[in-house]
Amino acid sequence: MTPEAGFHMRHKHLLGIEPLEADEIRLILDTAESFLEVSRRPIKKVPTLRGRTIVNLFMEPSTRTRSSFEIAEKRLSADSLNFSASGSSVSKGESLIDTARNLEAMAPDMIIIRHSAAGAPHLLAKVCHSSIVNAGDGAHEHPTQALLDAFTMRQKKGKIAGLRIAIIGDILNSRVVRSNVFLLKKLGASVVISGPPTLLPPGMERLGVEVDARMEHALEGCDVVMMLRVQRERMARGAFPSLREYFNLYGLTEERVRQAKPDVIIMHPGPINRGVEIAHEVADGRYSVILDQVTNGVAVRMAVLYLLSGGAIGELAA
Amino acid sequence: MTPEAGFHMRHKHLLGIEPLEADEIRLILDTAESFLEVSRRPIKKVPTLRGRTIVNLFMEPSTRTRSSFEIAEKRLSADSLNFSASGSSVSKGESLIDTARNLEAMAPDMIIIRHSAAGAPHLLAKVCHSSIVNAGDGAHEHPTQALLDAFTMRQKKGKIAGLRIAIIGDILNSRVVRSNVFLLKKLGASVVISGPPTLLPPGMERLGVEVDARMEHALEGCDVVMMLRVQRERMARGAFPSLREYFNLYGLTEERVRQAKPDVIIMHPGPINRGVEIAHEVADGRYSVILDQVTNGVAVRMAVLYLLSGGAIGELAA
Amino acid sequence: MTPEAGFHMRHKHLLGIEPLEADEIRLILDTAESFLEVSRRPIKKVPTLRGRTIVNLFMEPSTRTRSSFEIAEKRLSADSLNFSASGSSVSKGESLIDTARNLEAMAPDMIIIRHSAAGAPHLLAKVCHSSIVNAGDGAHEHPTQALLDAFTMRQKKGKIAGLRIAIIGDILNSRVVRSNVFLLKKLGASVVISGPPTLLPPGMERLGVEVDARMEHALEGCDVVMMLRVQRERMARGAFPSLREYFNLYGLTEERVRQAKPDVIIMHPGPINRGVEIAHEVADGRYSVILDQVTNGVAVRMAVLYLLSGGAIGELAA
Repeated sequence: MTPEAGFHMRHKHLLGIEPLEADEIRLILDTAESFLEVSRRPIKKVPTLRGRTIVNLFMEPSTRTRSSFEIAEKRLSADSLNFSASGSSVSKGESLIDTARNLEAMAPDMIIIRHSAAGAPHLLAKVCHSSIVNAGDGAHEHPTQALLDAFTMRQKKGKIAGLRIAIIGDILNSRVVRSNVFLLKKLGASVVISGPPTLLPPGMERLGVEVDARMEHALEGCDVVMMLRVQRERMARGAFPSLREYFNLYGLTEERVRQAKPDVIIMHPGPINRGVEIAHEVADGRYSVILDQVTNGVAVRMAVLYLLSGGAIGELAA
Repeated sequence: MTPEAGFHMRHKHLLGIEPLEADEIRLILDTAESFLEVSRRPIKKVPTLRGRTIVNLFMEPSTRTRSSFEIAEKRLSADSLNFSASGSSVSKGESLIDTARNLEAMAPDMIIIRHSAAGAPHLLAKVCHSSIVNAGDGAHEHPTQALLDAFTMRQKKGKIAGLRIAIIGDILNSRVVRSNVFLLKKLGASVVISGPPTLLPPGMERLGVEVDARMEHALEGCDVVMMLRVQRERMARGAFPSLREYFNLYGLTEERVRQAKPDVIIMHPGPINRGVEIAHEVADGRYSVILDQVTNGVAVRMAVLYLLSGGAIGELAA
Repeated sequence: MTPEAGFHMRHKHLLGIEPLEADEIRLILDTAESFLEVSRRPIKKVPTLRGRTIVNLFMEPSTRTRSSFEIAEKRLSADSLNFSASGSSVSKGESLIDTARNLEAMAPDMIIIRHSAAGAPHLLAKVCHSSIVNAGDGAHEHPTQALLDAFTMRQKKGKIAGLRIAIIGDILNSRVVRSNVFLLKKLGASVVISGPPTLLPPGMERLGVEVDARMEHALEGCDVVMMLRVQRERMARGAFPSLREYFNLYGLTEERVRQAKPDVIIMHPGPINRGVEIAHEVADGRYSVILDQVTNGVAVRMAVLYLLSGGAIGELAA
């Protein structure tokens, strides 16, 4: 069910997947198809956002998400302003609200924010007139990651509804999981999560997902396996004893992949820890769509920037 | 008295307010009016400096000034090259003159410099052919700040001449004060300064300003109150005993605002320390024009870049 | 012997000078002439690479090389994406290959890489479809430096063949020397190297160069003297006793310049250490072409980017 031409986002901001309705999600995914096509041209640039200023406000280190947004902005001909925590007024003790108000006073059209505190983008949306895009807030949401994941699933499987997706690893600290669960449930997929019991938060069942600490059970009959990155810092805090132990219990090996459907696809938000959450041969193997996720990320972010700037599907300048 | 069409800057560089004449200051302020209008358009971009390269050479941490210049450059369609002290040849022990000569050899059209040493921009102006803009040099000058302050006063009060302006805080270490005093005296305003006696340098009267350590006296009958940022580092060096003490003696409260004229405007170069030099309710109150200063800063910097590139008033491409 | 119109690079990447043939080197130098002319225009910009994305992947601190590439990219109207080691996934333990594959998945047209490990650009060339440009890999090669050096020699001397070039300093750790030796031998120049015996690697004669630890001997009859930067870190490791001692034995003074030909030119890849490897008056003296090297560097890098993007000589858009 494709959205009708002229259909716009109902939201001004992209703060998370939770507030979106299914048709808005489909609108973003469909729009991203057009932008994926742009990314395959020799000249990968459209004049869509010429003269618009987009602030990339990254208060946590990030390479791939920031780069992906920055490339998306350049391909739309927007002007980017990078603003990171180091060397900023934030180190002079300024509050996030004052930083935001000051940025706002320079009249950017959009602010992309990554912040270690859950809710930081929502705070910005309250005090700013610009459109705010959440590029990851604490352990809360990371909506463009979930959108690019969904885009990749739809690209490889032709649909989302009815798919069975296993998400494996550090569920507790993952904004990627939360955004994915919201999205996949809205579009009619079934989700099972697994990982070390210390990293499985209680109450996930209320979000409509199955929880199974035994990885092999979780993998059974899956169309998609999404592996999460192990944060080595967690180990220090005792969530699991060693990287080797982690790999033995929750690493995705060729053998474990065989528990899933024969045409399973393997996903990972990156950067991957080879030999920790994923075996070398699986990361580079024929099931892996990890690099497709990266490619699709640029197209999905172009779609988000375009739609939040007031663009509608079917109006996209060639 | 508006400058005539075709009137150019007599100076190639903007090293400070001190060397400017009143008609050049008015030329910059008038030109900034046009650029403020550009900043209000949906597409905030003019092709004025297309193909020009501007180097942002920030040898001290800065967010708002650098961002403001960078946005101004992008709105004029110039190409920006950011060059900061960290990760630069400067950390390899290269002198400022050698850094400047090397930048110069790459033929940028303009260099915006912030440096901890007073006089650094003047040194560059001696060895470089590019136009140099001082974005703050030690405790010496910060001319674009004074210009945006004046622009904001003129915008809110209709004029500068005859206004009474109180500047309160760390006068000793402030480049903002020096540039403002030069500008305001040239345009016929009267200035009174106040702050902790340890932070009031002797001899300020010679610049034509009144000095009064009693803040309440200084505020009396003022049209404009400009609060300065407290540098927490100064406290460690004994300039004042505590932030609470500072606020008690020199913080701008609602009560103190009442000493000034009923239509007073409150300014601050930012970033503000809420509850230190300014009360929360004053910073966000109806007198505050702090965020207007930020907005106007972009327009004033666009005007400076345009005029130093050889532009004249009345010739500005729409 | 000018390359014929329509002549293209045979190589997709610029990994080093060693794999290039003499006619490709001449093609780059001849193309750089056109771009030097562009750099002298009031508007120093051509639309040649509009819509192309170039990633500047600098995994070692660098200012001048990065700035030079970035200016070259902007003058060709390409979009630049800066990606440095600090704040990148590399600090999260990602391998260079995974970083490269991820960048690649975002479909940049070219990747400029500086890395502390010799061979890093070659690794990228194996896994990436983009063109790779080596901007310095360990002590291995720094091809654009050698090209800009050769361009400068040809500009000042009218030719390379038959010139006698002395390269003085830390030969052991220098990628600049290796690339220069490869290039100069290919184009028919004779090269003599000199420096502290601890910093003269054995076997350099096999590359076709003379080796003479006595600086005065090496300088005799030279058309070009290329001084290398002293890395102060080496001193700590005992390669030489003190900076003063270094200057006494291997610093280029006015007196030593007199050993070379009367019309000798003095080169240095920068940043220079005044009073260590080069006397103040020599660095700024009439023989010095150090700043011409910087200017030419932008033109040479524009030529490399243009040619690796599929451009041919004689087809350059005005």
